[in-house]
Amino acid sequence: MASKCTMVLDTDVGTDDAVALLMALSQPSVDLIGVTCVHGNTSLDNVLVNTLRVLKLCNRLDVPVYKGTACPLISSNKRTDASFTHGSDGMGGIPDPHPPSRDLIQSEHAVNALIRMANEHPGEISLVAIGPLTNLALATKMDPEFSKKLKELVIMGGNIEGRGNRPGAEFNFFVDPEAAYITLQEYTCPITVVPWDTCVRNGLTWEWYDQWTSTDTVKGHFVRDILKRGMTNARTFYKRHLAPIFDPLTMAVVINRSIVSETKRSPVLVEVKGDVTRGQMVQVDASFVDHPKNGREVDIVLKCDADGIKEMLMKAVE
Amino acid sequence: MASKCTMVLDTDVGTDDAVALLMALSQPSVDLIGVTCVHGNTSLDNVLVNTLRVLKLCNRLDVPVYKGTACPLISSNKRTDASFTHGSDGMGGIPDPHPPSRDLIQSEHAVNALIRMANEHPGEISLVAIGPLTNLALATKMDPEFSKKLKELVIMGGNIEGRGNRPGAEFNFFVDPEAAYITLQEYTCPITVVPWDTCVRNGLTWEWYDQWTSTDTVKGHFVRDILKRGMTNARTFYKRHLAPIFDPLTMAVVINRSIVSETKRSPVLVEVKGDVTRGQMVQVDASFVDHPKNGREVDIVLKCDADGIKEMLMKAVE
Amino acid sequence: MASKCTMVLDTDVGTDDAVALLMALSQPSVDLIGVTCVHGNTSLDNVLVNTLRVLKLCNRLDVPVYKGTACPLISSNKRTDASFTHGSDGMGGIPDPHPPSRDLIQSEHAVNALIRMANEHPGEISLVAIGPLTNLALATKMDPEFSKKLKELVIMGGNIEGRGNRPGAEFNFFVDPEAAYITLQEYTCPITVVPWDTCVRNGLTWEWYDQWTSTDTVKGHFVRDILKRGMTNARTFYKRHLAPIFDPLTMAVVINRSIVSETKRSPVLVEVKGDVTRGQMVQVDASFVDHPKNGREVDIVLKCDADGIKEMLMKAVE
Amino acid sequence: MASKCTMVLDTDVGTDDAVALLMALSQPSVDLIGVTCVHGNTSLDNVLVNTLRVLKLCNRLDVPVYKGTACPLISSNKRTDASFTHGSDGMGGIPDPHPPSRDLIQSEHAVNALIRMANEHPGEISLVAIGPLTNLALATKMDPEFSKKLKELVIMGGNIEGRGNRPGAEFNFFVDPEAAYITLQEYTCPITVVPWDTCVRNGLTWEWYDQWTSTDTVKGHFVRDILKRGMTNARTFYKRHLAPIFDPLTMAVVINRSIVSETKRSPVLVEVKGDVTRGQMVQVDASFVDHPKNGREVDIVLKCDADGIKEMLMKAVE
Repeated sequence: MASKCTMVLDTDVGTDDAVALLMALSQPSVDLIGVTCVHGNTSLDNVLVNTLRVLKLCNRLDVPVYKGTACPLISSNKRTDASFTHGSDGMGGIPDPHPPSRDLIQSEHAVNALIRMANEHPGEISLVAIGPLTNLALATKMDPEFSKKLKELVIMGGNIEGRGNRPGAEFNFFVDPEAAYITLQEYTCPITVVPWDTCVRNGLTWEWYDQWTSTDTVKGHFVRDILKRGMTNARTFYKRHLAPIFDPLTMAVVINRSIVSETKRSPVLVEVKGDVTRGQMVQVDASFVDHPKNGREVDIVLKCDADGIKEMLMKAVE
Repeated sequence: MASKCTMVLDTDVGTDDAVALLMALSQPSVDLIGVTCVHGNTSLDNVLVNTLRVLKLCNRLDVPVYKGTACPLISSNKRTDASFTHGSDGMGGIPDPHPPSRDLIQSEHAVNALIRMANEHPGEISLVAIGPLTNLALATKMDPEFSKKLKELVIMGGNIEGRGNRPGAEFNFFVDPEAAYITLQEYTCPITVVPWDTCVRNGLTWEWYDQWTSTDTVKGHFVRDILKRGMTNARTFYKRHLAPIFDPLTMAVVINRSIVSETKRSPVLVEVKGDVTRGQMVQVDASFVDHPKNGREVDIVLKCDADGIKEMLMKAVE
Repeated sequence: MASKCTMVLDTDVGTDDAVALLMALSQPSVDLIGVTCVHGNTSLDNVLVNTLRVLKLCNRLDVPVYKGTACPLISSNKRTDASFTHGSDGMGGIPDPHPPSRDLIQSEHAVNALIRMANEHPGEISLVAIGPLTNLALATKMDPEFSKKLKELVIMGGNIEGRGNRPGAEFNFFVDPEAAYITLQEYTCPITVVPWDTCVRNGLTWEWYDQWTSTDTVKGHFVRDILKRGMTNARTFYKRHLAPIFDPLTMAVVINRSIVSETKRSPVLVEVKGDVTRGQMVQVDASFVDHPKNGREVDIVLKCDADGIKEMLMKAVE
Repeated sequence: MASKCTMVLDTDVGTDDAVALLMALSQPSVDLIGVTCVHGNTSLDNVLVNTLRVLKLCNRLDVPVYKGTACPLISSNKRTDASFTHGSDGMGGIPDPHPPSRDLIQSEHAVNALIRMANEHPGEISLVAIGPLTNLALATKMDPEFSKKLKELVIMGGNIEGRGNRPGAEFNFFVDPEAAYITLQEYTCPITVVPWDTCVRNGLTWEWYDQWTSTDTVKGHFVRDILKRGMTNARTFYKRHLAPIFDPLTMAVVINRSIVSETKRSPVLVEVKGDVTRGQMVQVDASFVDHPKNGREVDIVLKCDADGIKEMLMKAVE
């Protein structure tokens, strides 16, 4: 049973981000008090519009949407293009003929909004970060006290076995390694990481995926359409045995922690200097003879119960 | 003749920062609309108090003082201690028995204040940065439009001949190399850099220095006291032939550009990855066969007229 | 059935290296034409003596032993100490009261010997490298044609899941990352890598291990004694469920390739620049959107048949 | 007056290398016992032929020429092309219609020859290195005792003011930074460095250069022809006020140390990790508050007497 959750979502919507947002909005236990937008799967401008599209679909344009950062801390990072998976608009190439007005975006900066919300709800907020961590890094640099006022931080990002959807790293950490480094070093609240490897391993069967995306509702059609491009690639190009779910799995973990069946507590660091490992999350266990001393303990999700996730995904498209 | 200047000073006061601030306050042409504080020569807490001390000395506690960032972007940077030069309090170890109240510090964050002031004075502000560039980097990440609203940015920092007061680099860039990198890459307003090498070469004679610090005024005594430690080190430990002036030279350049007798326009980059060159400012001239393409053109000050500087320094202690 | 094998062993004997050498010497199919020594588990001087000790134990002092490099290419690499596992003498702290004379060591340098042997046996040599790859890197730099004259190169080293017995890396690659990089980039013969992860996963049961080290022969007592320290650590400190076998597993793969039940062909690179990933072997599959183009295809051993290994281990202590 | 000198020249001939070689051969005080060739200004194959051409020109084909390394330690280093200065053949694009036979090249590897010669002439050899330091790095890795048997090592390479003929670095160190690092860290004999900056500053007047290259001798014509391309670039493209002499200045320093009028003794390191500073020589003086401890003391040549150099250059084309 999901317990009450005051949530702020930091996101780069993004096709699977959209599903995660639908999940949050479909759960009575979740009080989504704000969405902070960040570059990543697509441009910040697209992310803002995509977020509003999902909120409109759910008649939840009351949820405040904040504009955050448009590029990584080190902007000249070799960029990576996620349009192969997410389409050039970040929504699978499925335009909205009547997109919500950009006037709905709050004037307050996402980073300032994060700090303000944490002050208004001390110890209550579950901050769910499913894009590059640029906004989160800026929030702790602007206010070193910010993170201690959070209930928890849950991150979709990083990897635990050296590989990812980028060579040596996972996309969100790869896009802004310094931001990931800063966040994992400085945040003092409990941190849960749902790494790329876990998302791939805990995918859903393609049979179930086909059934789910056949749900004959407005939200069901929406999900079917935006995921089509990425999931076709996953099935044919990457030849995944299971339908990988990244941001939705992370959201499921936040909504109902009891679906998590195995975690690992480990000190971690983000590599920022490697040629092919830049952005890799590295576990730096104390058992090493020559281990770096400055790792930060996080809870890494390893396994989840598929039934719990499916139930939440079904509810999201009702 | 100095032209009218709307100035914001970003500083880590610091003994020579204090002199630069005295200089700005002594010039009728300068309208100092704010001081934004940053870690560097000493802790942010010391910087705030030190700034207020100088303002009080000049009866200018009306100038708003803003609290900025307390550590570099990548906090775990190997820190460097400037207390050898600036004392543990950043003011040469000269305490104020009756320091100004910290209640005088504005509640608005320095980075937000920078953005707001630029919006209120578009195209007018000379931003003078004489500490690590952490606040400036955050300002452009928070608002990519920020820098285009400035009249100019003048930086004391970086080096042009591979050496500095840290191995391979100058202190301000060494302390936060990523911030220096971001600032030089992203700021679109005209940038003038007063590098370490120029400051050392354009020092003042020790005779003149002794005469200046013998000025029998309250400000003269103050300057004599706070500089004593650092200048004694410069004279005996580093065996400098001239009294180096870093932040004051930079301030002099802003107040009266005509004292500059030689500059060089060059594309520059900040090295962020080197083992011993981290923080080095590198000139990447287009004449190289294999030159990096992403340097940012800045005006580097090479030589200044000593008489002009001396006049401003004298006025600062009247 | 093992086919005939002309072998050169490059090794940093080392406790498990000693077992691998015993295995090679016990197989009629193996013609061991030379042992080239390298720093690693212990100092080069210890490695030379340890190699001679094993040869003497087998009455095989006719096998030529060559002295190679005493330190990594970049000597000032932060060193790592393997004495926790191998003892200060590299043989588990078990001295030989009558060690063989160092006069038995060839005067020819190991690197020159490697090149000469390849010229004398073109296309025939299986080069088995179970220490840091410093000698191998020098051989290809001294003679770019060297590696094409080998039949194959089999390496114990590297990792495939981002972790190792050093943070982010495996010991042999960690000790000399540049040498590993050079070897994997430049060797043109077929390369098989037996990574750390595979060795840990394909360990033997502790029951079998205890039985094996109870073999009541001179060689059985020797093996029992030298492995005691490391295996006790593996069992109690690292809490391994299986007795890990690194160099012996690699030797088993060379002696009888048919024990390998699963391999993976993948382009790989060695990270040389990371802060915590220096020395990591990274798989750079072509399926990545932004993959580095310069990976080198190798065969990575994933699974082996335990019975085949056990048979060879038993034969080694007869 | 030049004292007797037993010399080994390690070179990547190269137009100015050719002049340096002419200088050595024209001095009775110099006993050139070998030339070891290395990639650099042009391919190793070109270097070998170019070396033989110069020896033939001087009727000194008795001097043994050794083939060394054809690429840097880390071969995949972003290569840099020196053909703008040296032509595609490394000799200014001036072919020899009847080049000496490649059969004249010794079969012994350059690195082994270096080690052997040092053993045969302990404490006597001046090793003059005017190309990338790949051979020298291999020599000390192959035999850690090698360098202590040298009288001295004189290097043309590195820079002292952060800039060079490559961004942040000088060509020879830029081409193989790891080799430069290893050489400066491990060589125990006295080391003299003639850096790029010194060579540029101690150039000759163009008037004198024109006069020198008008010398009406076979060698004079040769020098005029091979230098034409590079010197025209120096004069027009790089707009140098003086004709820069790199390898010849270094050779002059070895032949007659008394032409050196100013040197500086400083611990130095080579940066191997920087993005734009890779290959930079960095001075790490002990006076720094946070200085790296592992610099290696070398004598850096700063100023030379032009008349002494001119005399040797004139003699070289007699």
